[in-house]
Amino acid sequence: MNQIGLVGRLVREIELKEVGEDKVVLNNTLAVAKRGKKENGSQADFIPIVAWGQVAKLMQLYCEKGHMVGLTGRIQSRSYVNKEEETVFIVEMVVDEVHFLQNKKIEAAAVSK
Amino acid sequence: MNQIGLVGRLVREIELKEVGEDKVVLNNTLAVAKRGKKENGSQADFIPIVAWGQVAKLMQLYCEKGHMVGLTGRIQSRSYVNKEEETVFIVEMVVDEVHFLQNKKIEAAAVSK
Amino acid sequence: MNQIGLVGRLVREIELKEVGEDKVVLNNTLAVAKRGKKENGSQADFIPIVAWGQVAKLMQLYCEKGHMVGLTGRIQSRSYVNKEEETVFIVEMVVDEVHFLQNKKIEAAAVSK
Amino acid sequence: MNQIGLVGRLVREIELKEVGEDKVVLNNTLAVAKRGKKENGSQADFIPIVAWGQVAKLMQLYCEKGHMVGLTGRIQSRSYVNKEEETVFIVEMVVDEVHFLQNKKIEAAAVSK
Repeated sequence: MNQIGLVGRLVREIELKEVGEDKVVLNNTLAVAKRGKKENGSQADFIPIVAWGQVAKLMQLYCEKGHMVGLTGRIQSRSYVNKEEETVFIVEMVVDEVHFLQNKKIEAAAVSK
Repeated sequence: MNQIGLVGRLVREIELKEVGEDKVVLNNTLAVAKRGKKENGSQADFIPIVAWGQVAKLMQLYCEKGHMVGLTGRIQSRSYVNKEEETVFIVEMVVDEVHFLQNKKIEAAAVSK
Repeated sequence: MNQIGLVGRLVREIELKEVGEDKVVLNNTLAVAKRGKKENGSQADFIPIVAWGQVAKLMQLYCEKGHMVGLTGRIQSRSYVNKEEETVFIVEMVVDEVHFLQNKKIEAAAVSK
Repeated sequence: MNQIGLVGRLVREIELKEVGEDKVVLNNTLAVAKRGKKENGSQADFIPIVAWGQVAKLMQLYCEKGHMVGLTGRIQSRSYVNKEEETVFIVEMVVDEVHFLQNKKIEAAAVSK
């Protein structure tokens, strides 16, 4: 059993990468406001996220850097070897569903009025 | 909004560390079975967890390495500088509640019959 | 283990009731957009919610009918006997935390400009 | 955004109903232990659940009345008119995934040794 739900803001520009046969992947980071008041230290947690296929395409279509979204999915771990030949261990959220709490198109429409 | 729920097995021995004035902390890793069948690669995700105070004490009292537990809480990020003076970025689950799906005491009782 | 997270809109005016010794309770309903497109039938699920004490007071302070909020908590069941002496069975969300995705005060400020 | 995760025990015998063209549905109730100690009143919440198609078939194959399962999914509301021509309002969990924390087949195998 593995379930995660976050509401936060996308930290970086939305970019889709093609990986092999017609597969697309989107990597970004979600800034999630911490609970309660924090006197010092960060006001947010920065959670790496990854979305695949149709979910990734929808996010590219409707989201921009800084937009607030609700994400549901699961948490996963993986490791890779970097250029320095060190093993890097990653914990990240895999997105199953996106809920757009702010809309690039709606804002564009508002601007054009 | 930041919510996570996992069911899995505790990977390491349960250890409490005292940190400053009467505060205790428990760090461990939860092995969570991946969804679906995996032909190759890992069958589980390994998620770092941290519990504080009363929750940590309850886990020490009732859990052992390998035990299955249900955990609810939130995901957080933090960074620290290691011995090599490199900044290490960590994503981990902060445990709010533990649900014991297996019990050290019950098992001990069963063994003693 | 009992965990629920919803994002939706408050359907009714926010009202606090006093129940006994300094306890306050807030009952409302959250309209949560259904996933995917629905050709017919309702576009939303209507989930009864209940909040107590400080959480209830915060919701009264910051929310209005129609506002979007993120709620985390648990699901509970209870039953009561109504005026017709029938037993009514209720399933509702108990709110642990509210995340204000829209703000009564901010909007008021914007209006006053 | 609509996400729920529960661990509890199935209250009734597992039954699949056929509804129209090759569709199957499973209705049951999950007894979920309440948090903390309760001096009086119920020790559990009773949450109606519904599963469709493949999920329902897997539950029939692997679960029995009384078994502990982890369920993830969403909460929905619906209403219907009963035999007394009264409108009945239902709040229930729609199951997306089942996690078997106890296994009918494993137990049967253990018994047969």
